[in-house]
Amino acid sequence: MAQSEDMTRCIGLCMSCYQICLGTAMNHCLETAGKHVEPKHFRLMMACAEMCRTAAHFMLINTPHHKHTCGECVEDCERIGGMDECVAMCRSCAQSCRAMAA
Amino acid sequence: MAQSEDMTRCIGLCMSCYQICLGTAMNHCLETAGKHVEPKHFRLMMACAEMCRTAAHFMLINTPHHKHTCGECVEDCERIGGMDECVAMCRSCAQSCRAMAA
Amino acid sequence: MAQSEDMTRCIGLCMSCYQICLGTAMNHCLETAGKHVEPKHFRLMMACAEMCRTAAHFMLINTPHHKHTCGECVEDCERIGGMDECVAMCRSCAQSCRAMAA
Amino acid sequence: MAQSEDMTRCIGLCMSCYQICLGTAMNHCLETAGKHVEPKHFRLMMACAEMCRTAAHFMLINTPHHKHTCGECVEDCERIGGMDECVAMCRSCAQSCRAMAA
Repeated sequence: MAQSEDMTRCIGLCMSCYQICLGTAMNHCLETAGKHVEPKHFRLMMACAEMCRTAAHFMLINTPHHKHTCGECVEDCERIGGMDECVAMCRSCAQSCRAMAA
Repeated sequence: MAQSEDMTRCIGLCMSCYQICLGTAMNHCLETAGKHVEPKHFRLMMACAEMCRTAAHFMLINTPHHKHTCGECVEDCERIGGMDECVAMCRSCAQSCRAMAA
Repeated sequence: MAQSEDMTRCIGLCMSCYQICLGTAMNHCLETAGKHVEPKHFRLMMACAEMCRTAAHFMLINTPHHKHTCGECVEDCERIGGMDECVAMCRSCAQSCRAMAA
Repeated sequence: MAQSEDMTRCIGLCMSCYQICLGTAMNHCLETAGKHVEPKHFRLMMACAEMCRTAAHFMLINTPHHKHTCGECVEDCERIGGMDECVAMCRSCAQSCRAMAA
């Protein structure tokens, strides 16, 4: 498997982003409640998690179809905000995906 | 692909159960809020959805490893309760899995 | 959960398409071997399956992000060919997604 | 999110194991062909990948249902063999899961 270094990095960041988003939603958000479980916010967290999980899966399968998925991840993750660890991870993930697509 | 009739039925029910559980959690539960977003309840809904999705995936891959997954689905789904459509679907899914394992 | 009729139909077709593509790849293709396990073909089957699974998941989560995913499904599925059941299902799925986006 | 250290480690190993198994199957195995695409072997690789992905997902959701999933991962991964990186990762993953369940 001759993955490029950029690809390997992007897979790792997508998987971390999935992990942080899902873990934060299902633990921090559910336990804090209030605005953290507002439908719009909670769905965005879950959609971002799933998007990153899928982008990593496509890169591992080695199809060229991950590019759009990565693009959506960027868009989505930057809109979330409000939770530092999550935001920082989303930003790194987005930058890595953009660098790879360039 | 020579799937048995029982298997085909069980895959269909697992996929419906996944659909009902995830759709109910992310729409009805998030919008109703209150006890519907209590961490324990919400996690169970999401775990049941994921379990059914995975059980169907294993049956489609055609590995013998779905049996435990199906068993867990039964256990989990019956503990949920309180939402008629979801409960009815979980019960059918559980019965179909049990019939297949017999 | 007030899903539109079009959405419900599109979810159902995406899940059937996932089921047919994954089941065909992991059974018919692996057992027939030869050109059916050529990396390019096999990856496309697996990518199409995953794409449809993800599109259905996004629609169930009820985020607007499924539209691109559905579009990719169309593109991908039509390029496959050669296996009647799979092609027919992909075509229906694509048409339903297109109708919904219109 | 107050994940125990053992849990964090186990999630990381399950995600690495998923990554190695899926990446190896869809790249090394498909390209090497021959016995690497024998249905039994290839399904096991894919089942192991999916099992690890699901185990990590359950741990992130924070439900107690991951324990069986982890157990299956152990069972499955040790039966594979023949590809050093994959085997080593499966073994670490299994040991971490066992330690956590103890």
